[in-house]
Amino acid sequence: MELLYFITQEEGENLKEYLYNFLKKQTNFEDKLIREIMEEIQLETHDKGTVLLKQGEISNKCYFILKGCIRQYSILEDGKATTTNFFTEEESVVLFNSYLNKGTSDYYLSCVEDVVLLVGDLEAEESMYTKYPEVEKITRIMLQKSFGESQDSIAEFMSSTPEQRYLNLLKKRPGLMERVPQHQLASYLGMTPESLSRIKKRLFKDI
Amino acid sequence: MELLYFITQEEGENLKEYLYNFLKKQTNFEDKLIREIMEEIQLETHDKGTVLLKQGEISNKCYFILKGCIRQYSILEDGKATTTNFFTEEESVVLFNSYLNKGTSDYYLSCVEDVVLLVGDLEAEESMYTKYPEVEKITRIMLQKSFGESQDSIAEFMSSTPEQRYLNLLKKRPGLMERVPQHQLASYLGMTPESLSRIKKRLFKDI
Repeated sequence: MELLYFITQEEGENLKEYLYNFLKKQTNFEDKLIREIMEEIQLETHDKGTVLLKQGEISNKCYFILKGCIRQYSILEDGKATTTNFFTEEESVVLFNSYLNKGTSDYYLSCVEDVVLLVGDLEAEESMYTKYPEVEKITRIMLQKSFGESQDSIAEFMSSTPEQRYLNLLKKRPGLMERVPQHQLASYLGMTPESLSRIKKRLFKDI
Repeated sequence: MELLYFITQEEGENLKEYLYNFLKKQTNFEDKLIREIMEEIQLETHDKGTVLLKQGEISNKCYFILKGCIRQYSILEDGKATTTNFFTEEESVVLFNSYLNKGTSDYYLSCVEDVVLLVGDLEAEESMYTKYPEVEKITRIMLQKSFGESQDSIAEFMSSTPEQRYLNLLKKRPGLMERVPQHQLASYLGMTPESLSRIKKRLFKDI
C-alpha cells in the first residue's frame, strides 16, 4: 500500500485495517490475496476544498472513497453550478465516459471534506485484472450494484417533486444532509436554497 | 441459439448473422468461441404491447435488444405513469436492483414495438462467466460504458430544462422520436404532452 500523500503512521495503520476488513467483507478472497492486492493499492489524501478534476480536463483516474465526501458538479453556460452527485464512504467515483474514452469531462470533482481515497487508472486497473481475475469478477459485481443504484436514482429523480426527493434522500442517506453545504444540496435536489429552507421549516416546524 | 418463441427460419438466419457480426465487432473473440457462445444464447421475440415485467414482480431476467424498443415506467401513488427509460437496439435492459437482490421491481417493462431479445438469468450469466472468462471481461467493459452513459443522462436531466432535454435527445437519439408515443416521450422528458407539443411547434415553425 503506497501512501502518495502524508498521513500519520497511526492513521495509515487504521486505514490498512479498515481496507483489509472492507475487502474481507466484500469478497471471499483468501488472506494472502487480500494482502497482495493491498500491496498494489495506491492511497491519496486530499484536504477539504481540493479540486480533483476540472470540467474540460480528461478524467484519467478512478477513485474509491475510504473517508470523506466528494461532490460532482458542472458549470453551465449561464455560469450556474449544478451539483449532480455526492459520493461518500465505500462509493466509487469514476466518470466513465471521460475515463474510458479519454474525452474531456463535463464535470468538476471537488472534496467537500478531507478525503482518503484509493486511486487507480486504466493501466493499473487492467494490470490488476490480468494478475487477479478474481478482482475483475468482484469489479463486475460492484459495477452492477452501483449501476442498479444509479438506475433507481435517475428514475426517482424523474418521477419525484423536489420535496419528495428531499424526503427520499433523508431516508436513504440521512448523514449526507449534515455533511454538505445547503446550497449544494438544494442544487442536487433540483431546487433553490430558499425552497429547501422552506421545505425544511414546514417539515420540522413541530419538532 | 435456442429460439423460445416462433420466428421464421429466414428471420432466424438473419438474426444469427446479425448477432455474429455484433459479437465480432464488440469483442476480439475467435470464431470458434463466438459460435460456442451463440449456441448457448437464448432468444425471445415478443409482440408490441407485451408487458415483460410488472411493477411489484421480481425481475429475474436480463435482456439485450437485437430489434425493437422497450419502455421502462412506473405507476406512481397518484395513478400517474412516469416513463423513466427507453431502450433500443444494442442496449441491455437489466433492472439490477431487482435482478441481483431478487427484490420487487419498481418498474414495468413493456414492448413499444415488436422485439427480438437475447435473454439470460443470474444462473445462465454465472455459468457463462465460469465457462468463458472472456465474457466476464467484455461484460465488465460494456457495463462501464453503459454506466458512463447513464451517469451523463442523469446529470444532463438534472441540469437541463425540459426544452434542452428535448433538444439533447433529438441530437443523441434522433430516431427515438418517431418510434414512441408522444405522451410517453413527454413523460420521459419531464413535461406534459401539451408542453412537448408547444416546444415542437415553436422549434419547427419555420421548417
